[in-house]
Amino acid sequence: MSDGADLMELAKRRGFFFQGSEAYGGVAGFYTYGPQGASLKANVEDAWRDRFVTREGHMEIDAPTIMPEPVFEASGHLDGFDDMIVECPECGESHRADHLVEDATDVEDAESLPTDQVEALIADNDITCPSCGAPLAGVDVSAFNLMFETDIGPGSSQPGYLRPETAQGIFVEFSRLKEYARNQLPFGVAQVGRAYRNEISPRRGLVRVREFTQAELEHFVDPEADEPPLDRVRDVELPLYSAEAQQGDGGIETTTVGEAVDEGIITSDWVAFYLGVARDWYERIGVDMDRFRYRQHLPGELAHYASDCWDAEAEIDGNWIEITGFAYRGDYDLSKHAKYADADFTVFQQYDDPVTVERAVVEPDMSVLGPEFGGAAGAIAEELDRMAAAGDEQFDDLSDADTVEVTVDVRETRSDSRANQNAERSGDDETYAVPADALDYRVEEVTEAGEHVTPHVVEPSFGVDRLVYTVLDHALRTDEVDDEERSYLAVPPEVAPTTVGVFPLMSKDGMDDRARDLAATLRQAGLSVAYDDSGAIGRRYRRQDEVGTPYGVTVDYQTLEEETVTLRDRDSTDQVRLPVDDLPAAIADLRTGGALADWGDPVE
Amino acid sequence: MSDGADLMELAKRRGFFFQGSEAYGGVAGFYTYGPQGASLKANVEDAWRDRFVTREGHMEIDAPTIMPEPVFEASGHLDGFDDMIVECPECGESHRADHLVEDATDVEDAESLPTDQVEALIADNDITCPSCGAPLAGVDVSAFNLMFETDIGPGSSQPGYLRPETAQGIFVEFSRLKEYARNQLPFGVAQVGRAYRNEISPRRGLVRVREFTQAELEHFVDPEADEPPLDRVRDVELPLYSAEAQQGDGGIETTTVGEAVDEGIITSDWVAFYLGVARDWYERIGVDMDRFRYRQHLPGELAHYASDCWDAEAEIDGNWIEITGFAYRGDYDLSKHAKYADADFTVFQQYDDPVTVERAVVEPDMSVLGPEFGGAAGAIAEELDRMAAAGDEQFDDLSDADTVEVTVDVRETRSDSRANQNAERSGDDETYAVPADALDYRVEEVTEAGEHVTPHVVEPSFGVDRLVYTVLDHALRTDEVDDEERSYLAVPPEVAPTTVGVFPLMSKDGMDDRARDLAATLRQAGLSVAYDDSGAIGRRYRRQDEVGTPYGVTVDYQTLEEETVTLRDRDSTDQVRLPVDDLPAAIADLRTGGALADWGDPVE
Repeated sequence: MSDGADLMELAKRRGFFFQGSEAYGGVAGFYTYGPQGASLKANVEDAWRDRFVTREGHMEIDAPTIMPEPVFEASGHLDGFDDMIVECPECGESHRADHLVEDATDVEDAESLPTDQVEALIADNDITCPSCGAPLAGVDVSAFNLMFETDIGPGSSQPGYLRPETAQGIFVEFSRLKEYARNQLPFGVAQVGRAYRNEISPRRGLVRVREFTQAELEHFVDPEADEPPLDRVRDVELPLYSAEAQQGDGGIETTTVGEAVDEGIITSDWVAFYLGVARDWYERIGVDMDRFRYRQHLPGELAHYASDCWDAEAEIDGNWIEITGFAYRGDYDLSKHAKYADADFTVFQQYDDPVTVERAVVEPDMSVLGPEFGGAAGAIAEELDRMAAAGDEQFDDLSDADTVEVTVDVRETRSDSRANQNAERSGDDETYAVPADALDYRVEEVTEAGEHVTPHVVEPSFGVDRLVYTVLDHALRTDEVDDEERSYLAVPPEVAPTTVGVFPLMSKDGMDDRARDLAATLRQAGLSVAYDDSGAIGRRYRRQDEVGTPYGVTVDYQTLEEETVTLRDRDSTDQVRLPVDDLPAAIADLRTGGALADWGDPVE
Repeated sequence: MSDGADLMELAKRRGFFFQGSEAYGGVAGFYTYGPQGASLKANVEDAWRDRFVTREGHMEIDAPTIMPEPVFEASGHLDGFDDMIVECPECGESHRADHLVEDATDVEDAESLPTDQVEALIADNDITCPSCGAPLAGVDVSAFNLMFETDIGPGSSQPGYLRPETAQGIFVEFSRLKEYARNQLPFGVAQVGRAYRNEISPRRGLVRVREFTQAELEHFVDPEADEPPLDRVRDVELPLYSAEAQQGDGGIETTTVGEAVDEGIITSDWVAFYLGVARDWYERIGVDMDRFRYRQHLPGELAHYASDCWDAEAEIDGNWIEITGFAYRGDYDLSKHAKYADADFTVFQQYDDPVTVERAVVEPDMSVLGPEFGGAAGAIAEELDRMAAAGDEQFDDLSDADTVEVTVDVRETRSDSRANQNAERSGDDETYAVPADALDYRVEEVTEAGEHVTPHVVEPSFGVDRLVYTVLDHALRTDEVDDEERSYLAVPPEVAPTTVGVFPLMSKDGMDDRARDLAATLRQAGLSVAYDDSGAIGRRYRRQDEVGTPYGVTVDYQTLEEETVTLRDRDSTDQVRLPVDDLPAAIADLRTGGALADWGDPVE
């Protein structure tokens, strides 16, 4: 219904959003929400909170945006959160090297190629700088980390990073959060807050910005025991663009949640549950369901730890943009942090009844291992323990064997050089040959009350700015009223920046005072109200139409005589006359789908 | 009622707040709000929004936290937002040099001294490192800028800073914001958001942190024409600790807003207005009015541009901490940006009737000035214009004078070297002697419709984290219930993290299912609800008491038979029995001060 330029112009003129610090030239990728936009955004966040936190009984936390380096060593962002960059030697402009290659060749997923191959593709295809036309052949392609870095503290400061996603603020606090959940799986922890990515090429509008707001839910589940309440969403119809359809000639197929699960199109029940819940929520906040789809990640696109991923996508200006990612992340995040951090990232799951199990144990003779392997002996003993528990084959015929080979992480033994003479190294690992006769191996019966489980993570991750942009774009309409073109925003009342506009017909004879009083009364009733007395009444209606205010109330001479007002509907521009006292009830009714005609006589 | 250790322990155990990233050792000055704290904080923010934005009809915006360098050149933060630091040569620990001096000497405001004087005081008083005891005499004291710096963009990146206050995000957008206000003064623009200060020595708890949330209102007013609605708050009683009292032997004096203005204790009516509005708001969110005061800035403490400043202070652990600053900032902020930025920071104020005024104009003969002053000629002509308008004395007897001295900023003329031979320099200024006979000076009559006014700024600036900390500290109480000590949080229902706890008496015979249904029903009614079925009922009451949940509802056998429940008040622990259907109305009534006894028969 719109093209991008219209929306950007309206956004700036009417106070939805605009580039920040423009008085100083502005900086690409940073937007300020004006009064209308800030309100719309807050309403979208509140609607999200209502649906994904409150109604589901989840927790919400609020963590710092600056986090210390070790967090991102563990999460993998320090090493892997890169884009490929090539800087033009002529004009100094930086570009995404993978995008240049994709634009100029048939290569589709250049991001996954090593940099030298991208350099070769640039040279072979005579790719030039999009800014100045200089050839880029022979120019280095390098990895550019997208995190904003800063220094925490003075003097011997430590590096800190602006979080690239809110999720890490949840994962690192898991051991405390599980206590708040009284050590019971499943539980969900949500966060709505800023995240930052130092994009190489920010796009116009709110689609690719450097500072943005995420609404993320991390739902921690026991992969063996917990199942989502799929019945609640089984009949919700989803417009699915499956991986199979993308690879073949298929398109979007509308399928119920139940069918999609039964037919194995969506492989994770948890992901299917959230696709169903979110589908109705998108409609509720004003995403046009004819310009919406769920796109499955292609096998090559899928992160190695994720078993199934779907993106919610909205169509804007002919392009599909991702507004939410839904991923079943397994135990990837918590296991990573468990490896790096000093905290417990498991939950003890009690069995209904204690169970007796056979457990293999191995007791090494430390008086042999100690002298033989020095500082590595401890790590070797621990690894032997783990190998026995895991049923390592080497123990099957231990009496026939001379040695048992044990591989441990070299970083745990590095401090001791003596051990290395008895070991073979491969990468970070060293393998030791432990004399079999120094090991006492046996299978015992033990009674266990439960087990330590590393929860799996189901993550719906919403981009709030993109949602706001989508809602605006999908709501922008034009029609003709009184032979004049009118543009208006058909946003749902729940997210509209303002709920009611209150207007005196004219600023005289006490109509303005009466209207001001009425505005104050409606505000006290919890409504978001705009009072406007400047210009012709028609112009004031248009102004509120353009910012999506669903209802307009006009105070006229009749109001002063008989305490009635006119109430106008934004989309139809229909008006009825009703008693002032009925307004709160009428507006509450209209917000939940009531009909204007039920509340009074039509006004011409 | 509490000491800090109790509060910190409760905050961590019950999910209010705790140091972030503790699994990685934590970083001083960064706190994560757990579920209870995040909810309390959001409620405080909403109460602020309700009072200072919605009810006053102001606008709220949402600007980026990263801003480019020129903004802070203009605001003065780049040059002046420093603390004095001394780094111990032995242990490497950094300390606030001014604090060390204040602790060891009688000097009270060491921050205002030059660094060499602080160095001398450290040497003269043999001050040592508080961490390791090494002498600090002879060690450099330097200025440490408190802004977090980062780089925006790849390659030839530009410096960016995490904003040290939300206010700058409002000031830089003034020229656009005034359009949204339809160029009408007064108008107010608010923002609730993160701000950052790289503190040298963060304190324990939420009092001095490196990442925090501010709620700031910038009220733009015409200093000549606009007056606050002082009548609305004239009778509000303020506990004032005036500058005079601080300098003499005075203490806190309780004075009404009206008296304080009439007697000249508060010199700005606008500041007085906000002190009155805020006083009632603090009480509303749970600040203990017996541990609260407004402290006036001392003359030396006052920023040079501010004519009157008061801090709202709360007493915590025997210390008074600032929770809000109220300042009349004049045109300082907008004038600074007007000088640096490319935008209009004035508002055109139309007169009621056009006025005819005399205006002096001077027209220089550019065919003389051009050859004489080269590239500086334009700047000189502009300055002459300004001097004439300002009534410079040199024009009074121009016919007798040989030259007129004109001083212009050298930065505007730097590109031209020819001019400098005819000028004297002083700092950034150069003074030129312009031949009097090259100037045509006259006084004209002109009709003006209005004037361009640089608005003055009234700024109430709230520290949200300190408010949360104060509310918690002031609400923490202990008493005795059933011969056991009980600790509970007496926070007002409006800001309580949870409004109602719903408990089945036991998890059997359908009581748990009925309680879960009831929790869902109350959530649908818009209430914040906690469902808890684990442990003895008394323990569950205590758990909710500790997180400040004002009401508890218990589902028991009687509920199943006759659809009644017990409703319990947190502070009195009184209980009444009432029909389930009355719950929403009862809770709504209690929240606004109703009595529990009106809703049912007491339960023993």
